[in-house]
Amino acid sequence: MNHLAVNYSDVQAAAQRLIDVAQLTPLLPVTLLDARLDATVHVKAEVLQIGGSFKFRGAYNRLVQLDAAARGSGVVAWSSGNHAQGVAAAAARLAIPATIVMPSDAPAIKIDKTRELGADILFYDRMRESREVIATALAERSGAVLVPSFDDPYIIAGQGTTGIEIANQSRAAGGLPDIVLVCCGGGGLVAGIATALAELAPDAAVYSVEPEGYDDTARSLATGIIQHVDPAARSICDALLAPHPGTVTFPLNHTLLAGGLVVTDAEVRAAMRFAFRELKLVVEPGGAVALAALLAGKIEVAGKRVVAVLSGGNVDSAQFAEILQASDQ
Amino acid sequence: MNHLAVNYSDVQAAAQRLIDVAQLTPLLPVTLLDARLDATVHVKAEVLQIGGSFKFRGAYNRLVQLDAAARGSGVVAWSSGNHAQGVAAAAARLAIPATIVMPSDAPAIKIDKTRELGADILFYDRMRESREVIATALAERSGAVLVPSFDDPYIIAGQGTTGIEIANQSRAAGGLPDIVLVCCGGGGLVAGIATALAELAPDAAVYSVEPEGYDDTARSLATGIIQHVDPAARSICDALLAPHPGTVTFPLNHTLLAGGLVVTDAEVRAAMRFAFRELKLVVEPGGAVALAALLAGKIEVAGKRVVAVLSGGNVDSAQFAEILQASDQ
Repeated sequence: MNHLAVNYSDVQAAAQRLIDVAQLTPLLPVTLLDARLDATVHVKAEVLQIGGSFKFRGAYNRLVQLDAAARGSGVVAWSSGNHAQGVAAAAARLAIPATIVMPSDAPAIKIDKTRELGADILFYDRMRESREVIATALAERSGAVLVPSFDDPYIIAGQGTTGIEIANQSRAAGGLPDIVLVCCGGGGLVAGIATALAELAPDAAVYSVEPEGYDDTARSLATGIIQHVDPAARSICDALLAPHPGTVTFPLNHTLLAGGLVVTDAEVRAAMRFAFRELKLVVEPGGAVALAALLAGKIEVAGKRVVAVLSGGNVDSAQFAEILQASDQ
Repeated sequence: MNHLAVNYSDVQAAAQRLIDVAQLTPLLPVTLLDARLDATVHVKAEVLQIGGSFKFRGAYNRLVQLDAAARGSGVVAWSSGNHAQGVAAAAARLAIPATIVMPSDAPAIKIDKTRELGADILFYDRMRESREVIATALAERSGAVLVPSFDDPYIIAGQGTTGIEIANQSRAAGGLPDIVLVCCGGGGLVAGIATALAELAPDAAVYSVEPEGYDDTARSLATGIIQHVDPAARSICDALLAPHPGTVTFPLNHTLLAGGLVVTDAEVRAAMRFAFRELKLVVEPGGAVALAALLAGKIEVAGKRVVAVLSGGNVDSAQFAEILQASDQ
């Protein structure tokens, strides 16, 4: 195994920092799917995390590293929404001023909730401006620390605490998982979970799941070389639109993952309806890709113990209502 | 204290029977409300229970009492939906044939899911026929056991296991509750929870919460005499339309409750939107009344530790979509 930027002890240390800070989200059985798929299925309900997605874990683990001087200068992040809320919530908890650079077409719920958490928001035009340039200039001007959304060892280790919980909760529920399905944008969550499970459930096959058109990690895993997204690609999974795998996340994922799965927007909508009806959970498009892969039969699970991570639930009511009432499958 | 039909040891016994059978549903913090109400607020997410509501607890605790001969003859219940699913799920688990008498205008999701759980369904016209007469005749004809939806000691004790969990989870989260808000139709859930908390959190004030027009328990508590609902009353809370308190539940509630609160349908819809947006939970109208009472300021909670039970999440997608997009408050 190559030398990797994050190892299990980093995830363990993050878990220690997050005790009584992050929510221990439940691992819920999906008995309806057990019968249908001849498997033992659980979902990790990370929609119930602080800020409505897993992002708080990594953001807190990153921000808590800052010394008093750095905290005083504040933090800057760019995000379409879930990382924004994660950083805003972690910053509020640590009394650090936060500015978030967000696309002006981000879901209103993500903008509003970031603001409610006390962060300043700076909007940019996703089609014409560079969030990196705006955020970097702001950080240089103010002395604030730039908080990346996935390509950072502390962020990855924080997200990986989800994997420790999956292992512990699965064991308590009857056995370690054989297959774990995790959404993938930049790849921080799946890299962190895979790092934890390589230690705690070494026989588990961990898969990234991406939306069609944004399958850069699946193609990068298949070729061993970082692949980019076609700039013309579109998806309803606003949380998973990273243009290419990270330089920190990809070596981890290339070493640790069993492969990359891909789902269509229609499969994502069907999974959101399933979560509404059968699980009573609100799941956003990007948060539903792992469940979508399972429901759409993208992987053979008969006889296996499977965990699908429901990674976020920040979806506008108008979009959710529209998806509930559609029946494309 | 009068001699009551259910005591704490009955609830404890039910909890033993439900270990590894019912879901231990999470108690979730609502930090947004902590700031707004100057309180410490948790919700008990019973929408995540098997069958999508608390009803499985009582149904299983009742059905597991039946001997082999009685199990062979099957069970009959009447229900607008949640008890139907609770009985169907418990009967399936115990391999008991179940027939459910349901109103033909019950939410489609409740009808479909009851059928998916393997129960036979017999429809009746809520305005012109008596479900009691239909179900009783069916039970007499077939020898099946009639399973009441709330007015039964085993049912109440089963629902009361929710109260044991609330006490244990609240203690783990920092302290026992001062105020516990629970939905009330026939009063089985609130009676069971109050029985458990009288032992485990004797300082907690437990309140029933009912929809406007169906405030029979509130009026009965205030007068000490069982009051009935006006037959002309209407509410979106289809799960809470019992016409009067039960003869088993009311003596318990009269002895144990601190009082009865009442909420409007508009307050219920606002609570459903809050649960969607802030908690990422799907809550049906009847399941949202306790949260509605809290949000609408029906009780002073400043400085207190408060638990609101989210009792069920079985709502049709069309109704949920409509409520999400409305803005009546």
